This record gives sequence, C-alpha cells and structure tokens, in this order.
Amino acid sequence: MTDAMQTAGDTEIFDRVESQVRSYSRSFPRLFTKARNAKIHGADGTEYIDFLAGCSSLNYGHNDPDMKSALIDHITSDGLTQGLDLFTNAKRDFLAAYENIILRPRNMNYRMQFTGPTGANAVEAAMKLARKVTGRQFIVSFTNGYHGVSLGALAATGNSGHRGAAGVTLSGIHRAAYDGYFGPDVDTAEMLDTQLSDPGSGIDAPAAIIVEAVQGEGGLKAASADWLRKVQAIARKHGALLIIDDIQAGCGRTGTFFSFEEIGLDPDIITHAKSISGMGLPMAAILIRPEHDIWKPAEHNGTFRGNNHAFVTARVALEKFWKNDRFEKAVKEKGDHLASRLEKIAQNHGLSARGRGMMRGVNAGSGERAEAICKECFKHDLIIETSGPHDEIVKVLCPLTIEKEVLDAGLDVMENAFATVFGQSHLAAAE
Amino acid sequence: MTDAMQTAGDTEIFDRVESQVRSYSRSFPRLFTKARNAKIHGADGTEYIDFLAGCSSLNYGHNDPDMKSALIDHITSDGLTQGLDLFTNAKRDFLAAYENIILRPRNMNYRMQFTGPTGANAVEAAMKLARKVTGRQFIVSFTNGYHGVSLGALAATGNSGHRGAAGVTLSGIHRAAYDGYFGPDVDTAEMLDTQLSDPGSGIDAPAAIIVEAVQGEGGLKAASADWLRKVQAIARKHGALLIIDDIQAGCGRTGTFFSFEEIGLDPDIITHAKSISGMGLPMAAILIRPEHDIWKPAEHNGTFRGNNHAFVTARVALEKFWKNDRFEKAVKEKGDHLASRLEKIAQNHGLSARGRGMMRGVNAGSGERAEAICKECFKHDLIIETSGPHDEIVKVLCPLTIEKEVLDAGLDVMENAFATVFGQSHLAAAE
Amino acid sequence: MTDAMQTAGDTEIFDRVESQVRSYSRSFPRLFTKARNAKIHGADGTEYIDFLAGCSSLNYGHNDPDMKSALIDHITSDGLTQGLDLFTNAKRDFLAAYENIILRPRNMNYRMQFTGPTGANAVEAAMKLARKVTGRQFIVSFTNGYHGVSLGALAATGNSGHRGAAGVTLSGIHRAAYDGYFGPDVDTAEMLDTQLSDPGSGIDAPAAIIVEAVQGEGGLKAASADWLRKVQAIARKHGALLIIDDIQAGCGRTGTFFSFEEIGLDPDIITHAKSISGMGLPMAAILIRPEHDIWKPAEHNGTFRGNNHAFVTARVALEKFWKNDRFEKAVKEKGDHLASRLEKIAQNHGLSARGRGMMRGVNAGSGERAEAICKECFKHDLIIETSGPHDEIVKVLCPLTIEKEVLDAGLDVMENAFATVFGQSHLAAAE
Amino acid sequence: MTDAMQTAGDTEIFDRVESQVRSYSRSFPRLFTKARNAKIHGADGTEYIDFLAGCSSLNYGHNDPDMKSALIDHITSDGLTQGLDLFTNAKRDFLAAYENIILRPRNMNYRMQFTGPTGANAVEAAMKLARKVTGRQFIVSFTNGYHGVSLGALAATGNSGHRGAAGVTLSGIHRAAYDGYFGPDVDTAEMLDTQLSDPGSGIDAPAAIIVEAVQGEGGLKAASADWLRKVQAIARKHGALLIIDDIQAGCGRTGTFFSFEEIGLDPDIITHAKSISGMGLPMAAILIRPEHDIWKPAEHNGTFRGNNHAFVTARVALEKFWKNDRFEKAVKEKGDHLASRLEKIAQNHGLSARGRGMMRGVNAGSGERAEAICKECFKHDLIIETSGPHDEIVKVLCPLTIEKEVLDAGLDVMENAFATVFGQSHLAAAE
Repeated sequence: MTDAMQTAGDTEIFDRVESQVRSYSRSFPRLFTKARNAKIHGADGTEYIDFLAGCSSLNYGHNDPDMKSALIDHITSDGLTQGLDLFTNAKRDFLAAYENIILRPRNMNYRMQFTGPTGANAVEAAMKLARKVTGRQFIVSFTNGYHGVSLGALAATGNSGHRGAAGVTLSGIHRAAYDGYFGPDVDTAEMLDTQLSDPGSGIDAPAAIIVEAVQGEGGLKAASADWLRKVQAIARKHGALLIIDDIQAGCGRTGTFFSFEEIGLDPDIITHAKSISGMGLPMAAILIRPEHDIWKPAEHNGTFRGNNHAFVTARVALEKFWKNDRFEKAVKEKGDHLASRLEKIAQNHGLSARGRGMMRGVNAGSGERAEAICKECFKHDLIIETSGPHDEIVKVLCPLTIEKEVLDAGLDVMENAFATVFGQSHLAAAE
Repeated sequence: MTDAMQTAGDTEIFDRVESQVRSYSRSFPRLFTKARNAKIHGADGTEYIDFLAGCSSLNYGHNDPDMKSALIDHITSDGLTQGLDLFTNAKRDFLAAYENIILRPRNMNYRMQFTGPTGANAVEAAMKLARKVTGRQFIVSFTNGYHGVSLGALAATGNSGHRGAAGVTLSGIHRAAYDGYFGPDVDTAEMLDTQLSDPGSGIDAPAAIIVEAVQGEGGLKAASADWLRKVQAIARKHGALLIIDDIQAGCGRTGTFFSFEEIGLDPDIITHAKSISGMGLPMAAILIRPEHDIWKPAEHNGTFRGNNHAFVTARVALEKFWKNDRFEKAVKEKGDHLASRLEKIAQNHGLSARGRGMMRGVNAGSGERAEAICKECFKHDLIIETSGPHDEIVKVLCPLTIEKEVLDAGLDVMENAFATVFGQSHLAAAE
Repeated sequence: MTDAMQTAGDTEIFDRVESQVRSYSRSFPRLFTKARNAKIHGADGTEYIDFLAGCSSLNYGHNDPDMKSALIDHITSDGLTQGLDLFTNAKRDFLAAYENIILRPRNMNYRMQFTGPTGANAVEAAMKLARKVTGRQFIVSFTNGYHGVSLGALAATGNSGHRGAAGVTLSGIHRAAYDGYFGPDVDTAEMLDTQLSDPGSGIDAPAAIIVEAVQGEGGLKAASADWLRKVQAIARKHGALLIIDDIQAGCGRTGTFFSFEEIGLDPDIITHAKSISGMGLPMAAILIRPEHDIWKPAEHNGTFRGNNHAFVTARVALEKFWKNDRFEKAVKEKGDHLASRLEKIAQNHGLSARGRGMMRGVNAGSGERAEAICKECFKHDLIIETSGPHDEIVKVLCPLTIEKEVLDAGLDVMENAFATVFGQSHLAAAE
Repeated sequence: MTDAMQTAGDTEIFDRVESQVRSYSRSFPRLFTKARNAKIHGADGTEYIDFLAGCSSLNYGHNDPDMKSALIDHITSDGLTQGLDLFTNAKRDFLAAYENIILRPRNMNYRMQFTGPTGANAVEAAMKLARKVTGRQFIVSFTNGYHGVSLGALAATGNSGHRGAAGVTLSGIHRAAYDGYFGPDVDTAEMLDTQLSDPGSGIDAPAAIIVEAVQGEGGLKAASADWLRKVQAIARKHGALLIIDDIQAGCGRTGTFFSFEEIGLDPDIITHAKSISGMGLPMAAILIRPEHDIWKPAEHNGTFRGNNHAFVTARVALEKFWKNDRFEKAVKEKGDHLASRLEKIAQNHGLSARGRGMMRGVNAGSGERAEAICKECFKHDLIIETSGPHDEIVKVLCPLTIEKEVLDAGLDVMENAFATVFGQSHLAAAE
C-alpha cells in the first residue's frame, strides 16, 4: 500500500482536487477498483453490471485475459512503451494483423495514420486532410453528430452544450440533416444534393461529408443503408471526400467490424478510436485511401501517436475476435436478443426502441425520465447512461463480449427501472 | 510468435500500410524492439543511446522497473484500464500523491482536469476555459511557440509547416514576440504591454497569455526569469489569465518539477502532458486555480480522459522521484554537466549552446548541417533530433535518469559528429 | 467640352483603365449619356427602354424632375453636400418626412441609423447590432439570399461566385432553406424551427434571422405570407431578432412601401438602400426598434453616412409618391398587368413566371437561354438582365413609374425575344 | 417650404428618430444649413470655420463653385445619376482625366475598380483581391491603422471601440507595429521582416501588407519615407502585395496627390475614397496594377459603384486642381504654415505636434484635455475634432483650399483654446 492510499471508498479528494468538469462520477459516485468483462467492482465490494463500457471503448469488455497477458509479456520484456512514430515490432505486428485480418478479407486498400490517441484528434486529422486534398474549406456534418470537442472537431459536433464552450466563432462546417431528421417522409440526402447542386444555395462545395452510420451521442439513430449510399454518391458527385466517423460505431459495435460493411460503402477516410486498442487504452487512427495520402512528413503529428501498449492489445483483439466469423455471429445474435428485449420494454410503456447491432436504446420521452431510470438502475447495481440531444435515450452500450446471463440480468434491472419510473409517473399523473 | 509476425527487422509493411505523414521513422529507419532507461534496442541487436526520449515524454527513461512493476500488478489484479472520468482507486491515489508531493509542498492550490490524453487537448481545454472565464476571444501566444496541431491549439502554434495544413483560417490568436526574439536589447514583454495598453493597437484585450518557459519545438529558447515575471504581471494588469504550457518543459525537464518554480510564477492554468504519466503512457491534464474552475459538467470531455494505467505509473513517478530533493539535485548536476559539454562543442565550432536544465541544444547554424550531424550520430548509434524554426538546433532531450556514463558516451558521439560535419564543411569550403 | 472628352461613343478607355471586374457593361456595351424615367439614351442617339433600373435602385425612374429640381435648389443654395452625421436641415427634413409619411401611418416605431451608403454596409450594421443585442454569434440566412459582398454580408449571401472570392473562411452564418426551396410540400420554416428547438442540431441559437420577402438576386422568389409570419414567430420563439433585408424589395417594388406590409410583419431591424434616395444616389439606412438601439456613439460609422444630396431627393420621393395611396395603387395595377403579360410569355413556352408586385421574371429554364433572350432584347433596345442561381430568370425590374405604353413596348420586345430564342432552340432541337 | 419643415434650428427629431450611434452631432449639436469652402452656417446664422472637413472628404472645401456648376449642368441635362457599372460619358470623362492628369504624368500604370462608394468597401475589395492573387489568407496591418468597420476591413482596423462591436471572431490579420510605435530606436519594419523570414514565427506568409502613409484616425502619425520603403521591400521579398490605403491621406492631403509620391513607392493596390469625388459625394475606387487585375466579372460588385454625380465632380476636381503644380505648391506652403503654428501651440504647453502636409495635429496629452479644447473651440465657432487611440490628438483637417486668413483665424481660436484649457488645468493643479 502506497502512502497516498486512503480509506477504501473515500472520494473526498475528488471534490477537493478534481475539476468540476467531471461528469460520469456524478451519476455513479462510487470508487471503482476492479473490472472484468462486463462487471465493475466498487471499493465496498459491490459488483456492477456495466452497460456503459467506456462509451463503447470497451467493446471486448474490461481486462480481456489474452490482452492482459500479451501486454504483461510486452512490459516484462521491456518492449517499447512510447515510440513516437518510430518503427517498433508492436506497431509492425498490429499493422500486419490489421492488413491480414481486416483489410485484405474485405478487399479494402487503405493506409493508416496513427494520430494523437483521441477520437477528436483522428477527426481533426481527417478534416485537415480532406481540406488539403480538395483545396476546399467547408465540411458537411450532420444534425446530432458528435465528433469531439477540440476546436476543429467541435465545429462539426452538434451538441450545443459543447459548442457553447468554444469561446470563438466555430467555422468551416455546413450542417445538413441526418437520416430521418425531418420525419420518415423527408429524404434529407436528396435535400443535401439539392443544396450542393445549387450554386446559389450558400452551401459551398465541400471538402468532405463526415457522417456516423449510427449516431452514438446523438441518440442511437441508425441511418438507413439507402441513405448512407446516397450520401456517398453525393460526396462523389460533388468532389467531396466521404469520411465515415467510425469511432463509436466501429470495431464490431454494430455487428460487423466497420459500421458500414454490409452497406457497401467505400469511404475516403475512416476514423478509429475508442475500441480499436481492444482493452480501452488510448489509441486512434485514420484509414486513408492511398491516393489521398498526400501528407508531408509530420504535417499532422502528436507525441502519443505511438502508444505501443495499445498496439499490443489492439493486435490481440484482431487475432482473437476477427480471424473468423464466430464473434461477429455471436454479436449479431446478442444484438437481436437485445433488440427484442428493448422493443418489449419500449412497448410496455408506449415508447420506441432504436439503434443497430449492440448499439441500442429506448427513448424514454424526456431527459428527466431517462435520468430517473438510470438512477433506478444504479440502485440495482447497473451502470447505464443516457444520450441524445435531450439526454432522453436510455442507452445500452454493454461489452460485445458480455455473457448472455449478465446481459439478461442487466436488462431485467432496466426493465424493472422503466416500470418503476413509469409507474411512479403514472401515479404522479394520477394524483 | 503470433501469425502476424514477420522477419525480424523487416519494415516493408510500414511503407505499404502506414501513412506518409510519419516522420521520426524517416530519420531512424530501424525496427526497435526493446528499451530500458536511456537505451533502445534494434531488432538486429544494436543498442542505441536515446537523446530524444519520446520528445521529453520519457523523462524517467524507458520502462522504469518500479512503474513496470506497479503497472503489472494493476493489470494482474484487474484494476480498471479505461475509467472514463469515474472515481477509481488509481486516479484517487494519483491525485493524492499529486496533492501531497507536488502541490502542498509548493503551496500551490489548484484543481486538476484530466483532458483527452494529448498535449493538444490540454491546450484546447486551457484556451477554452480562459475564454469562458474572461468572456474574451483572443489569446496571446508567442513566436516559435508550439502548442499542438488540433485546430484551436494550432492557431497558437508558430510553426508554418503545421499551420499550413489547417485548411481554414486560423483565428483567435494575437502573436507576440518571445523573450530575446528581436535581440538582447529589445524588451519584448514591454512591447506587449505597450500594445495591450493601447486601445488602438488592434491587439484586443486577451483571454489569456499562453507561454512556454523554455520553448522546446521552438528551438530550446529559455525565457529569462525577469521576462516571465513581466509577462505574468502583464496578464494580471490586463485581466488575462496566464497559461503556462508545461507540456515539454515540465515534469523535471528544467531541473524542477515545474519549469517556472524558481521563477516564482503563479499561473492561472498549467498544462501537463508528455512525461506526466512517468512511463510515456498517454495522459494529459490541466491545473486550474479554483476560482477559474467554472466548467459545467462534461462541458469539455473526451473518452480517454481516464487512462488508469497512466494514473498508476504517474503516481509511482511522483513517489519515486519527487518525495525529496535527491532527484532534483541530480538533474541539476547532470544539467550543468550537459551545459558545459554542449558549450564546449559549440565553442569548438564557433556556435552557441542554449537551453535550461536538461533541455539544451546547440545551434548548428543551419538545418542542413544539424540534419547531417544527427545522421552522423545515428551512424554511431545515437538517436538525436533537431528543433527550431529552421530545424537548426541539435537538441538533447535525454532521459533525466540517464546514467552519467551513458550521457557522456552520447555526448562523445555528438562531439565527434559535430567535428566530422564541420570538418567536412571546412573542407568543402576550402575547396 | 472638357479636355478629357473623346469621340462620342468611344469606350476604348474602359478596356484600358477600368478593372476587369465590370459586369453590366459587358452585356450592354454602349456609352450611355442621358436618362429620363424608363428610358436611357446612348451616345449614338439610340433610346433604350430600361427594365433593369439600377437593379431596383431607380424605382422612381431616372432623373425625376421634382427630385432634380429640389436637388439643384439645394446645390445652388450651398446646402451641405457631405455632412458626416451632423444635424443638417436636409437630414432633418428627410427624417421628419419619413416619420410622418412612412412610420406614423403604419404605426411603426423605429429609429433610423444612416450607415455607409451601400446595402452591404446596412447589412453589416444590422448583423453587428443583432449580435450585440443578443450576445450570440450565428445568424440564420437563406438559400439564394443576397445581402452584399463585404466580408460580414458575404457570409450571409448564397451566391457561390461571390462567396468564392472571400479568400478567408466565411463564418457566423447558419444556412436555412427559403420558402419552397425543397418544393411545395416541404415546410422549410417548420424545418428551421425543428433545428432551433433541438439542442443537438448544431444550429446554434441565432442572433438573428435575416430574410428577403422576395429574393431579388436569388431569382425573384417570393416567400408566402404564411411562411414569413412563421419565420417571424420562430425568431421570437428562439430569442433571435428578425431582420428584413428590404434593400431590393422595399421602397414600393412589391407594391407597398415595405415588402412585408400586407403580411403584417413586425421586424426588429429593416434594411434600406437602393431606391431609398429616390433618384439613385448612394444612401443606406437601417430601421431599429428603439429597444434594440443600444449602439455606443460611433460604434459603427462611415464617412459618407451623411449624403445630404440623397436626403433631399429621398424626402421628395416620400412626399411625391407616398403621401397618399395613388402611387401604391398604380404600382399594384401595373404589377398585375406585368404579371399577366409575363404569365402569358411563360405559357407560350411552357415556362413559369414568378415574383410579386413589380419584381417579376420568367424562368427561361437555363442560364444560356436567359442570356440569349436578354441579348435579343438588347438588339431591340431593351435593357434587361437575368438573376437566379443559374442566371436562368429573365427579370423585369423596370421603374415603378414607367409609363404604361413604355412598359408594354418593353414587354413586346421581351415576348418576341422569347419567341425568337425558343424558336431557334426548337429548330436546334429539331435538327 | 415642404410640410416636413420645422422651426429653424430645432433638432428634437434627431433624438426621437435617429439612432444613438450618431457621434459628431454630439460634439457639434447645431443644425447646419449651408456651407462654402471652409465655412459652415448654422440655422441660427452663426458661421463656423470647419477644421474637420468631412474627415478629409472635403479637401477642396464645401461646394466648390466649378463642381457645383458642372454637377448642375449634368443634372439639368438628364445625365445619368445611377449607372451601375455601365459605360457612361461621366465615367469615361473621369477615367480619361484620371489617366491624363494623374497616372501618366506620374508614370503610373494601374486599372481602376469602382467599388461600393465607401472607403470600407474599397478596403474589402483590395483585401479580397490580394488574397485571390496570392492564394494566401493573412494580411498584415498596423497598430492604430484604420480601414473601416465592415467585417473584413474591421479585422484590419486597430481601434478597440470598433473591434468590440464585431460580434464574431475577427480573423485573417496579423498585426505589426507602425513606424515609431516602440519609440525612435526600434525599427519596426526590420521586426516585421524578422518575423516574416522566420518559418516558426506564427506570422504566416501574407497576401498583403496594408498601410497608411499617415495614420489619420490613428492619431496623425506620419511614417518616415525610409520605413515605408522598407515595408514595400518587405512585401516584395515575401511575395505579398503592398496596399496603400490612401483614403484619408490621399487626394492632396499630404501635399501631393498620393500620400507616397515623394517617397517613391510603387504599390500593388491603392485605395481611394473620401475626397476622390472632389465635392464630398460618395465614391470609392481601388487602383490595381494590371497584372493583379484578375477579377472575374462581377466577382466583387455593389449597386452604387456607378455614382455618376461623383464622376462629374471628381473630374472637375482633377482638372481644376491637378493639371499643373499650382495647387500642390499652395498646399505645401499652407502645410508649412500650419506646421509652424501648431509647433508654436505645442511648445507653449510642452506638447508635441505631428503629421505631414495639411494632416496635422497636436497631442494634448489626454483625451479629456483634447475634448475640452475642442469644446472651447466650438464655443468660438470652430469645428475641430480629436483622433488617436485615446482621442488625445487635436486634429486639423481643414480644406486644402482654405483661405489663408480663415486658416489663421481658426488657428487663433485653437491657440486660445489651448491656453484656456491649459490655464485652467494649471490653476486646477495649483489649487
């Protein structure tokens, strides 16, 4: 025990020394000490089911034993930890695995750029590169899109809470409406094409269109395959690059490695972060079609673009989960099960479920109610959060590797919490 | 051996699959496999002395055994890896250590915000917060300053190579001249005060002044104590926050934990990244004076702001190196030694040495010559890089923990390389 | 004859000394020497009918005799010419006339700011003031809107030809779709409300909504009364100011003094330029609801904001044309006549007519065809131009004071030109 | 008398109907009715000497009889008033006179673009064109420079009062220090060269350097010939265009037609406004070296770019004052006289005089004192204003055509006002 140790479970130091900006610890004010797959342990011994999973950065669960083992081997043998962008065996082996397991079987031809290890940095790099390739300034992003909070990425992000903290005028973005934004009868892709085809629209010819196949922070809205294909065609037609921001929806979250695989997209740039390292270690990258890889050396850089620990665990993740289709099939089955249980919860209360794969949620109708449900869940040892513009979606982002019975146990808690909160509000309404 | 493995030392995959943006691997085109303190091993068995040290992100050397051990313990016991901004014991113990070992003995009262684990993100957070606190838009940054390449930080960065990749108009920055920029007789701090005191200067009342006490990327220029104190006074006088960007110069690099300790500054915000995790793991944070900690929850966020592996090693670094003044004294001695040897190298060739602590270099007079020297060093198994606006500074950023004899061995290589290159250029000139 | 005079009709000097930026003189490459009401005379004696009317800055025709007479009296008596923003009798009398003839009878309570005498400057002032009043940065402007080409106004303008010349990133605008932009079945006002009501839309709470009741440069699209009323309600609902840009559509062009009078709008700011001086002299102003008149003295200024010649003719225009409803009635009748004749031309060729009042045009289907028609008209001594995003609209902006027979003569030329061009294209198509 | 007329001298309507933004009418709260050369008449019969001269837009005085006469002839004969950018005889004759009288004798080869008739618009056009020619975004402007208040020009303007009203982030400008800004011993041109020669300075390679030879609003600071020549050389060296903003200092104000004639500059773009029309009518233009005249037709436009009344009076001004060197000599003599009298006033009170030609002032030491002096002058029927960053300069901008005795009468008033105010402040200090 170090001399900095305090009474188990004491969180008083956070109030004193950590900034007020912290957020999740407000919803789950416990001290957590251990975690394995879909379970997190509190200092008091309580075992929580984790339906948050590091906001989808823990798709393979907490502390996968094979990743742990490989990482410990790497550390033990004095493998490089921080390698800048030097060639290392850890990076080489990751690249080789990525090429063999991901790219080649999908007939994808891309180069990978390791950016600073945050999703925002991957987005910044993608936006810069698209502007460099096309010589254009504006990028089309969508309503309720989330792409990070550094200044360039923030301009593309829709959330007003984040945007309001910019402090300077956000620029370089034209905002378009996501699939279904104006209801099922309005084809928002066609609207975008209309605007881009009109030299008087005030929507300048864009450097890129950046889009999430499923909007995570935006409220688990899944775009239709048809709409995404149209968006790609629009990008091509107007000389813009297509950037798929796969940070949250990628790495198996929707059931395939990329969120757009079954849709048949062919993006110019793809962003990776969150679960790409496999174990939740900071890592981010962008995939670039070779003809667009026109960077000058170091033109976009970053000290931590060579997190070798992450390369080690990222390689293991590919080798363990993606060398054959077993994991993919399992995720799809689990996703279907999740869908049907959420659908039932939704129907119980006249609500709607949404999402794709294992990226799903239930619209609780209001942020207050969704918050109440999450609180109720936490009382019963389930960690679950909201998303959406009004924080109105109760969102399930559990590890893809969650055991069936743990998933069901968590969903049981969730189902009861909906019942409790809706029961209470019925009572409240009846009074 | 994993099935992704290839022939030892083969780097062909990087050409095929990694983006052209890579830079350091161009200067040091070897495959590296292991590292310990100031030594890195190539796949072919060659042992290199590391005077680059992850661009100062490895102040405590590669793979410190105590950090390794603590990290392996943490991993073995299923400690949290990715914790978002949840309370975890790893974070708590780091905060406690930071409070006890760093803040209290220095009578410093700050709150810490864990930003996305890159220096750029820490800078973005600092700039946003300063704008939020003051309601002002412009931030003063300095010639040759380096603060990162995401869009907000990039506006503050001086390097034209990075700026040229922005793709949109960089804004929100007024540029001032760093200490000594116009020669020893021009007081650039006074110039800044003149401009800020003049309502017609076109330099708007700034939200903040962001400054590095020693400019790393800018060419190892160390500002004088007097100048830095004036800059702080100017910030106060004009209602601006003082942001010390301590990402490269902090964590002991200049001989004290903070780069400004002996100067007696009292910054409003301090940025940490690079060596804060101790072992080179991605981690970044800003220190905020409590009265400025006015963030709303999650107003600035980021998935990887809770890299618990980094919290573990960061705690060990504090406990191992900063609980008493032994390390500090050793660094100062080593820094003096480094200074005198660089001074001698410089004198040999009519050049000048510069820098502070263990952040020093020699101005080789031109980028071409500095590059030739670094190449010559690498031939003799020394990894060393350039910095400065023309890449004209041969820069020593070795681990602070480097063994005296390894330091001298590296400096011997460097001395010979200068002699070789200057000899060649004398000959070339004599022809 | 001055010694600068040259052979009548010689235009060679323009090629040599005037910038290539000139535009109208390319369509009408004649030297013009005199003009009266709807007729312009060439140096060679040709008399042209003017359906361009200074782009609606000559609503009362060229050289109205009463304005001329009053202006000559003012000049003869050494009345002030340039008065900065000093109190002058010319300005006073104009303000008094404006108050008595325009504001009071309409129960309108506004203050008038004389900006630099260009429409762009009026728009810049309006945008600045809206931002100052609300503390917000973004302004909503519409597809195909035209608001000028100085940098602030240009951001609000839709035309890509103008936007492309900005040279820096245009910012501070969210673009919304004008009435009917996506066809008759899509309620674009409702779409805007949806976006502004959604905190995740990425469309920030705006400082203002700036809109033209009829888009002049955008192609003579007239918004419906219902849509404009909705837009006003949306502005109110979301705390934004409503700016009606009445520069082209105001001063009687649509049949009433303001373009929105019969619609019952109550804008926060209204812009005036073009025909406000009556005689085509440079003058611009904005009307501000008194509660928004929070400018500090000189906060927005401009040397020529006191063009006293323009005040003289502007006063005469009000007194001559707006003291009773005779002129208004005449304009409406003429507008109806114009509408029915354009409708007929359109029907002849399967085209559509559009516009409101005396701001009308025919969609020729393509820019090439519209240009050919205008050329054919010019061969028959009619000056007429195109507008619209593809320059596809043949636009009638003749003086409101045009004599019925001159109007019909011009329309006869236009009708024949359509027939000629469509005849030719039928032939071309038939070949 | 029109029915809008009111009691002579009544200014109540301005309070009620004119915006609070008005400024000069606060210093000179009288109703003015007539003006001739350097005299303005109040409605109450008082005759004021005018040392403000429309902020240098009335260099040839109020209502020059020859301009009046030519203008009345033009109006009487139905010459075009508003001509967009059509060819007209008035424009042709102005261009011919400008070519023959101004350009050819000075061996200058330029094309003229008529922009919207405000100085701000000329500056916006110049900045756009420089960005278009170079493909660069940033423009260097100077401390205390004034270039207008539309958004693009405002970024270049130094005055914080104006800048503060922008409402969005001003961008696209790097600010450099004007001649003498840091005292006589600091060569600010060399400083700029240092920064532009340093790829790490953060001052990007600029599209243009925009500079006033004498800063009017900035406080009548005259740059030295040597400094201006250096600035031109720096622009050339770094591939930037040199824009001389001659709006206030041009048209004879400094003694020659252009402010830089005797200095031997060769600008790429020159801006004209204020006195270019001769009589104070709104008119603005830029001169462009032919190789830079790469505008596409209408790429920068504006309804009032064809103010034919202004072309008429502008031509008369050239023919009357600039066909030989009589006027120029007279202005220089008057300027010398003015200089010696201001010098004497300054010496009386330990102050300093400054400026060049007939663009001169006395630094009263503080804005309060300068305001008191101007007030005292106005009590004695002299209209005179302040300038400078603190409004501390009492500024003489009388017509260049002012009669010697009127000039002396005005200076007598000024001399007494200084004595009165300084006497009062001596007394105040002595108490």
